[in-house]
Amino acid sequence: MSDSTNKVLKIGLPKGSLQDSTLELFAKAGFHFSVSSRSYFPSIDDDEIQAILIRAQEMAKYIESGAFDVGLTGKDWIIETGAKVVEVADLIYSKASMRPVRWVLAVPEKSDIQSVKDLEGKHIATEVVNITKNYLQKNNVSAEVEFSWGATEVKPPDLADAIVEVTETGNSLRANKLRIVETILESNTKLIANEAAWNDPWKREKIENLAMLLEGAIVATGKVGLKFNIKEENLKSIVDKIPSLRNPTIAHLVETGWVAVESIVDEKQVRRLIPDLKRAGAEGIFEYEINKLIY
Amino acid sequence: MSDSTNKVLKIGLPKGSLQDSTLELFAKAGFHFSVSSRSYFPSIDDDEIQAILIRAQEMAKYIESGAFDVGLTGKDWIIETGAKVVEVADLIYSKASMRPVRWVLAVPEKSDIQSVKDLEGKHIATEVVNITKNYLQKNNVSAEVEFSWGATEVKPPDLADAIVEVTETGNSLRANKLRIVETILESNTKLIANEAAWNDPWKREKIENLAMLLEGAIVATGKVGLKFNIKEENLKSIVDKIPSLRNPTIAHLVETGWVAVESIVDEKQVRRLIPDLKRAGAEGIFEYEINKLIY
Amino acid sequence: MSDSTNKVLKIGLPKGSLQDSTLELFAKAGFHFSVSSRSYFPSIDDDEIQAILIRAQEMAKYIESGAFDVGLTGKDWIIETGAKVVEVADLIYSKASMRPVRWVLAVPEKSDIQSVKDLEGKHIATEVVNITKNYLQKNNVSAEVEFSWGATEVKPPDLADAIVEVTETGNSLRANKLRIVETILESNTKLIANEAAWNDPWKREKIENLAMLLEGAIVATGKVGLKFNIKEENLKSIVDKIPSLRNPTIAHLVETGWVAVESIVDEKQVRRLIPDLKRAGAEGIFEYEINKLIY
Amino acid sequence: MSDSTNKVLKIGLPKGSLQDSTLELFAKAGFHFSVSSRSYFPSIDDDEIQAILIRAQEMAKYIESGAFDVGLTGKDWIIETGAKVVEVADLIYSKASMRPVRWVLAVPEKSDIQSVKDLEGKHIATEVVNITKNYLQKNNVSAEVEFSWGATEVKPPDLADAIVEVTETGNSLRANKLRIVETILESNTKLIANEAAWNDPWKREKIENLAMLLEGAIVATGKVGLKFNIKEENLKSIVDKIPSLRNPTIAHLVETGWVAVESIVDEKQVRRLIPDLKRAGAEGIFEYEINKLIY
Amino acid sequence: MSDSTNKVLKIGLPKGSLQDSTLELFAKAGFHFSVSSRSYFPSIDDDEIQAILIRAQEMAKYIESGAFDVGLTGKDWIIETGAKVVEVADLIYSKASMRPVRWVLAVPEKSDIQSVKDLEGKHIATEVVNITKNYLQKNNVSAEVEFSWGATEVKPPDLADAIVEVTETGNSLRANKLRIVETILESNTKLIANEAAWNDPWKREKIENLAMLLEGAIVATGKVGLKFNIKEENLKSIVDKIPSLRNPTIAHLVETGWVAVESIVDEKQVRRLIPDLKRAGAEGIFEYEINKLIY
Amino acid sequence: MSDSTNKVLKIGLPKGSLQDSTLELFAKAGFHFSVSSRSYFPSIDDDEIQAILIRAQEMAKYIESGAFDVGLTGKDWIIETGAKVVEVADLIYSKASMRPVRWVLAVPEKSDIQSVKDLEGKHIATEVVNITKNYLQKNNVSAEVEFSWGATEVKPPDLADAIVEVTETGNSLRANKLRIVETILESNTKLIANEAAWNDPWKREKIENLAMLLEGAIVATGKVGLKFNIKEENLKSIVDKIPSLRNPTIAHLVETGWVAVESIVDEKQVRRLIPDLKRAGAEGIFEYEINKLIY
Repeated sequence: MSDSTNKVLKIGLPKGSLQDSTLELFAKAGFHFSVSSRSYFPSIDDDEIQAILIRAQEMAKYIESGAFDVGLTGKDWIIETGAKVVEVADLIYSKASMRPVRWVLAVPEKSDIQSVKDLEGKHIATEVVNITKNYLQKNNVSAEVEFSWGATEVKPPDLADAIVEVTETGNSLRANKLRIVETILESNTKLIANEAAWNDPWKREKIENLAMLLEGAIVATGKVGLKFNIKEENLKSIVDKIPSLRNPTIAHLVETGWVAVESIVDEKQVRRLIPDLKRAGAEGIFEYEINKLIY
Repeated sequence: MSDSTNKVLKIGLPKGSLQDSTLELFAKAGFHFSVSSRSYFPSIDDDEIQAILIRAQEMAKYIESGAFDVGLTGKDWIIETGAKVVEVADLIYSKASMRPVRWVLAVPEKSDIQSVKDLEGKHIATEVVNITKNYLQKNNVSAEVEFSWGATEVKPPDLADAIVEVTETGNSLRANKLRIVETILESNTKLIANEAAWNDPWKREKIENLAMLLEGAIVATGKVGLKFNIKEENLKSIVDKIPSLRNPTIAHLVETGWVAVESIVDEKQVRRLIPDLKRAGAEGIFEYEINKLIY
Repeated sequence: MSDSTNKVLKIGLPKGSLQDSTLELFAKAGFHFSVSSRSYFPSIDDDEIQAILIRAQEMAKYIESGAFDVGLTGKDWIIETGAKVVEVADLIYSKASMRPVRWVLAVPEKSDIQSVKDLEGKHIATEVVNITKNYLQKNNVSAEVEFSWGATEVKPPDLADAIVEVTETGNSLRANKLRIVETILESNTKLIANEAAWNDPWKREKIENLAMLLEGAIVATGKVGLKFNIKEENLKSIVDKIPSLRNPTIAHLVETGWVAVESIVDEKQVRRLIPDLKRAGAEGIFEYEINKLIY
Repeated sequence: MSDSTNKVLKIGLPKGSLQDSTLELFAKAGFHFSVSSRSYFPSIDDDEIQAILIRAQEMAKYIESGAFDVGLTGKDWIIETGAKVVEVADLIYSKASMRPVRWVLAVPEKSDIQSVKDLEGKHIATEVVNITKNYLQKNNVSAEVEFSWGATEVKPPDLADAIVEVTETGNSLRANKLRIVETILESNTKLIANEAAWNDPWKREKIENLAMLLEGAIVATGKVGLKFNIKEENLKSIVDKIPSLRNPTIAHLVETGWVAVESIVDEKQVRRLIPDLKRAGAEGIFEYEINKLIY
Repeated sequence: MSDSTNKVLKIGLPKGSLQDSTLELFAKAGFHFSVSSRSYFPSIDDDEIQAILIRAQEMAKYIESGAFDVGLTGKDWIIETGAKVVEVADLIYSKASMRPVRWVLAVPEKSDIQSVKDLEGKHIATEVVNITKNYLQKNNVSAEVEFSWGATEVKPPDLADAIVEVTETGNSLRANKLRIVETILESNTKLIANEAAWNDPWKREKIENLAMLLEGAIVATGKVGLKFNIKEENLKSIVDKIPSLRNPTIAHLVETGWVAVESIVDEKQVRRLIPDLKRAGAEGIFEYEINKLIY
Repeated sequence: MSDSTNKVLKIGLPKGSLQDSTLELFAKAGFHFSVSSRSYFPSIDDDEIQAILIRAQEMAKYIESGAFDVGLTGKDWIIETGAKVVEVADLIYSKASMRPVRWVLAVPEKSDIQSVKDLEGKHIATEVVNITKNYLQKNNVSAEVEFSWGATEVKPPDLADAIVEVTETGNSLRANKLRIVETILESNTKLIANEAAWNDPWKREKIENLAMLLEGAIVATGKVGLKFNIKEENLKSIVDKIPSLRNPTIAHLVETGWVAVESIVDEKQVRRLIPDLKRAGAEGIFEYEINKLIY
C-alpha cells in the first residue's frame, strides 16, 4: 500500500461489530470481499481496490494522513479525533435500527444530577474524552473526564458519577439503572475520503461510483418489484388512487386493451397495495426481490 | 390488549413447532414480526396489529372468547375444543409436507385389534380426548380414554392398549412398532376469526387483506418467473404445445417480429419446460424467484 | 435399481466434499434431492430418477459397468480408472474456485529434485497410482509408486521422496513446505454417461435435458438481471458504448419516446455499468437475481 | 415389561428438563444409562433393571397401577394425581437450586387481588387443576379453574385473572410483571414405589439399595476429601477447635509422633479450614474429589 | 525425524475416528499431546518423543520400514499389509464398546448365499482385499474381490454380491438390510514396534514404560477407589464375604479397635458392594476416581 | 458497594480473555462465582465478598483509589498506570503457557531498525504509551508514540514504523512478518491490594487466606496423588533412589512388614516414577487427582 501514484484505491473498513454488515453491504453493491479469519487484509475481486480492516475509532485519523484514500466510520469518531476529511455520503445500514445512534450523558436513576450544570466537580467516564470536554466547556462546567476502556455503563455510581455513552435504544442504560440526562451528539456511518484522493480525478470517479452503488444497495433494502396486468381503461384510475405507484413502467401487451405495469415500491406498502390493486382489477400480481436501485 | 374499540387487530400465533415457519410465512406476506427470546409478545412493523404467541391447543378457545380477533390453529384443535369461530382460510405451509396431518387410531403391530369395534373395554391414550370419545360413541364402543401428556406413541402395549395420535408420514408410528387401524380426522392449519371481529367492517377488511397476502405467499412457494424472447411467428405453437404457460404476459420488442414472453410457472415443471422452449426457438430464457402471487 | 427396461434414470452423485455443492447445483437446476443423514440413497421429486451417493473415485467404474446410467466425477478419476464412458458436459461449480484442480508432482522445498527426471529410484506417494505410473513411463523414469491412504502432503521427506497430489491454490502444499515441480494433469467435474444409456433414446433425452439445466444453473451464477428506462433517442448510443449490454430486451413504454431495457449481465460488470448508465440518462435502474440462464 | 415375576425392577425416569441431571445422578450413583436420541427406553448396564422415560406428570399414576415398580417425580404431581404410592426417599439434586420449588398463586402487579379470598368469581389458569381446586375449596372460594397448556405466566391479565404456577426463584414471574400472593405447595423430587413392589422382598432390597446409592451420590456433591499430616501433640487441639473435622480417620505414620488425618468435609468450609489448619501446624494439606458418601 | 541415533522415540498415532480417544488415553497415561488443527505433528511435553498422525491402514508398513519406532494400529491392518512388526501390547480402549471389532462376510438379507462356499464366481467389495483373498483361497473359492473406497455396506445387491466389512454391533449392517454370513477376523488395537527399535535397549525401555502406563490407564477405566472405617473384629467377615475386596490396604486407626480399609474395585460392583458394607458395619464409606492402576 | 466499614471484601476480576480461567481458578480455590451473561457483577457463595468484572487495564487504578480492596491484573498495567498498590502474590495460571508474557519492540522483518537507538524520529504504535515513553527516555531516544486501539501488529509498515506489543509465543508477530528487536517488560498476573485494606486486620486476613487458597489451587495443577504398598524392607531404597518422592506419608498395614506409601508428585514425573516403583517391588500403585495443595 506504499505507492499512491498507480491506480489503486486504498479503503479502510471498520473492524468489529459493524464488520459483517459492512461486508454484506459491499457485496450487495457488487464488491465481494473475502476475509480469512485473523487476517486484517480482505481480498476483493477488483484489482483497483486494496482494503484493510481497522477500528472505527482510528479510521478518520488514517484517512486524514493519507494512509487510506477512503473509508467508513461514524460521525462521532470524526469529531472526537478532529480529523480533516471529505464527507462523501451518509450510509445508514445498521440492521438493528435505521435510526442514528446517540451519545448521551447518563447518571444513576437516583442521582441528583438533572442537567449538565450539575456536573461541576464530578467524575465522568467515557470513551469520547474530547467530545465530552468540549461539551463541558461549552456549558462552562468544570469536571474530571476519564477515559473508559469499556463497560462504561456499569461504572456509576461507584466508579464514576456520570458517563457519556453511546446508545441506540437505551435498553442497556435502563438495564444498568441509568437515566439519560441529555443527548450530546447524534451520529451515523459516513463514507469519508482523504482530501488529496478526492482531488485526484481517477480516485474521485472511483469513489463516486462506489458511493452510488453503496447508496443503491441501501435504497434497495426494503424495496420490492411489483408487476401486474390490467386493462388500459383501468390504468389511470389506479395510478391516481395509488400514489405509491410512482413512475411505473407500462408496456402494451399483445392482447388488445391490456397493459403490463411494473414498479419498484416500498416493501412495507405492499400489504396495503396488493389488496387495493386486486380490487381495482389487476391480475397476475406478483412480487420479487431487488438488489440495487438507482433512481 | 384491553381496548377493543380502537383500530387494533389482536392476532394469536402458534407457539412451538409451527412458530418459525409461521413467522416466515408472515414475513413473506409482508408482516415482519420480531421475537425476543423468551418473550411471548412479538413486535411487528404495523401499528394496527398486536400479536401473542400461544399454544395451538388453546387458540380456538381464546378466539371464541374474543381475547384475540384472529389466529392460526389446526382444524383438529377447533374440533377438540368445540369452539365457535369463523374459518377464514386454509393455510397449508408446513415445510415437511404439503399433505394435511392425520389423527389415527394405532395399536401394536401384533395386537388383535383390527377395527374400532375391537376397542370395547380397552384403554386408549391420546392428546385429543374429546375427538376420541366422540369417535367411540359414534361407533357405539365403550372404552377408557386417558389424556396423554406426551410420548403417546411409546405407551402401547404396557401403558395403553391403543392410542389416537397425530402423524404426517407414519414414520414415528412404524419406528415404535405400531400399526394404523383407522384414520379418525384429517387436519390442516386454518386462519380463524372471532365472530364479532368478523362483523366489524374495519377488522373484516384487515382480516381479508391478511388472508389474501398469506395465501399469495403460500401460492408463490414453488412458483418461479420465467422469461424469454421468441419470434412472434413461433409464439402460438408454443403456447398451444405448452399448457403450463397459461396467461403469459407478451410484449412486442423493438426488433421487428420478436416478442418477450413472461409467465409464472410451477418450479417443478421448469425442468421439462425449458428444454421444450429451447427446442421451439426461445432465446435468452431465464428464471427468477417470486415472493407473492395473487392471480 | 435392478430393472433397466422401465423408464428410470439411475444417477450417481459424488459423496463427500463435493456433495453439498452438487445437491445445491441440482436444486438450482430444478431437481430437489433430500438426503437423510447416513443414507446413501437421496430421494427426489422426480419419479423417473433414482440416485445413489458414491465416492467420486468409484463413479466412472460403476457408470462403465452400467450400474448407473449417468453420474458426476472428475476427469482425473475417469483417467485413473481407465473407464470407458461418454463425457456429456463439463460442470465447473466448485465454490472455492472456478479454476480446474491440478494434480502436481511436489517435493520438499529443499529437495534436489528439479524435474521428473530426478525421480529415478525414488519413492512416490499418491492417491492416483495409475496416472503417476503412466506419467513416469512417458518420461522413461523408473520409480516406486505407493498408494497413499491420505494426508499425502505430510509424507515428504520421511515417508516419501515426492508426492503426486491434487491442489487448487497450492496453499496446503506451501504450508507443508513442499515445492511444485510439474503439473501432471488438470481436472474438473464432468457429467458422464454409460454408453448403452446414451444410445437409449428416452435416457438420451433425459440426460441431455439434465445437462442443459445444470449448465443453465451454472451459467446463471454470477449473472444478474438489470432493468432501466431510457429515452429512445439515447438508446443506441448506450448500446454502442456498453458492449456488455448484449442483446437487451427492449420494449416501448406507454409514455412516448421512452423504452424499457432489460438485460442479463455479469454481476462483476454491474459496478462499472450502473454508473455509466446513470450518466447516459438511464432512470429507475434496478438489479435482481436469476436462477437459471439458457442463451 | 410384561412379566413381573422374574427379577426385573421397572423404573420410570422423568422425561424433559430434569432428564439430564437425573441420568447424571444415576451415573454418579453407579447406574449408567445410555439414551439414543428419540428413544424412550434407555439401556443400562444392569440386567435387573428396565427403564422408561415418561413425563413427570404421568409418573405417579403409572407407579400406582404397577406399570412401573419405582420412579422419580415431584411431590406436586403425586398430590395432583392423587396416586397412592410409597414415598421412599427425598432426592434434592436440581442444579439450579437446592431449594424445593414452590407452586404459588400469582396476579398482575397492579391487580386488586391481595389474598385467596379475592379470587371469588375469577378465572385462574394453571397446570395443576386439582391442587388449585382443593386449595380454593379449603378457603371457601368459588372460582373458575382452567387447564393451561403452557406459558401460563403470560396469561394475566388478558387471558386469566390469576394463575397458579411453579417457580424456583420468582424471576420469571417478576419478568412478566406478576406478584406472588401466596405459596400453595412446596415440592421436591421423590423416589416413589409401587405398593406391591415394595412388599416383594427382592424388589424391596433392590429399591433400598438404589435409594442408598442415590442419596450417597447427592450427599457427596459439595463434599471433598481433605488430608494432612500433623504432630500427634497438636492433633487434639485441632479437632477441638475445628468442629467440622468430625470423625476424622487418623493413622500413625512411620515417623514417630506424626499422624495422617483424613476427613470428608463440606467443600464450602475448606476455604476457612485450610488456613486454620496451616496455622495450627498441619503440613502437606491436600484436597480431592469424591463420588459418593455414605455415613 | 531424520536422526535415529539420538535418544528420540518416533511414535505413530492413528489419524481419524480413533484419534481423540487415543490422545485421551495417552493423556491419562501421562503423555499430553497438543494437536493444532490441520497439523499432523502433535507436540508433546516429552523431549524424547516425536509423534506423527497417520492413517491406521498405513501404520504397520511404516513401522516395519523403521520410519516410526512404535505405533498404534489394528490387528486387521497388520495382517492386511503383512508387515513384520513386534506386537508389544493389546490396547482395548474404544469407547463405544470394549469388545473387539469383527470383519464379517455379509450379504443381502434375501441373498441365496449361506456360506463362503456360495461365493464362487461372485463379486465381493471390501477395504481388506488381501485378507479377503486369503480367506477365499483357504476355502478353495474363486471370486472377484474389488477394493472399496468407502460406503461398502450400501453396495449390495447392485454394486456387489457380498462384502467383507468391519462391524462392532452389526447395527449398520442391519440398517442396510445385510445378513452376516461368517466372521473372518476379530481385531483390536495393538501397540506395535519396529524390530530394530525393540532391540535398542534405550528404546526398548522407553517402549515398555509406555506400554505399562497405557495399560495402567486402561485398567483404571471402570475402577474406583473405595475407603471406609470398620471395627477390626468385623473386618475378617467382610473380606471373606466380599471377594471383590481383594488385597485391601488396611491401616490401624488411633481409635482402638478400628481400622481404615482402602481398596480399588470395579465401579460396576460398587452398587452391590456399598449396601453390603453398610450392613456389615462399615462407616464413612466414600468413593473416589483414579487415573491409573498398576497391580 | 458503598459502605467500607462492614465486613465485605470488594474484589475486582479481570473481564475478557482471562475471565474464564480466572473464575475456574477461584472455583478450584473454593470460591464459586456465577456470572449471568451481560452482568458485570458475579454473585458468589460467600457473603463477605463482593465482586465486579473490570478490564485489566483499569484494575490497578481502581484498587489504588479504594474502589476495590483487592484484584487481579498484570504487572504491566500496574506499571503503565503508575498506581500505588500492595503486590500480594504472583498468580501464574494462564492455560496457554506457564511463561510470563513479554512486551516487545517489534518492526517489519525487512526494516533497518536494529535497536531502540534506531527509533529516533519514528512513529510507534502501542497500547502501553507510558511504558513506551519511559523506555525511550531511558534510552535517550525521541520518537512519536501513538495509542493503538487494537490490531497493533498489522500496522507496520504503513501505519507505524514500529510497535510495542504483548506476546506469549511470538507466533502472531511472525505471522504478521514482524521481527522482535528487544524485550521491554516481562509481566504476569498479580494479586494486588489497596493499601488501606491491607492495613485493616479483618481484610488483611481475608486477603491472605484468599492468596493461600489461590496459590494452593495453582500448585495443585500438574500434581497428582500416588499411592502404593511396599515391603518395609524395600522402602528406604526406594525413597533414596527416587528423590521426587519427597516427604511421603507412610502407614503400617495390618499385614506384617508392609507399608502404604502416599505422596503428592509432579504429574509429569509419574511416567518415569511408576515404572521405577514397579521394578522396585511396589504393588497396587494408583494415581488420583487433587484440587489444592498447601505444603
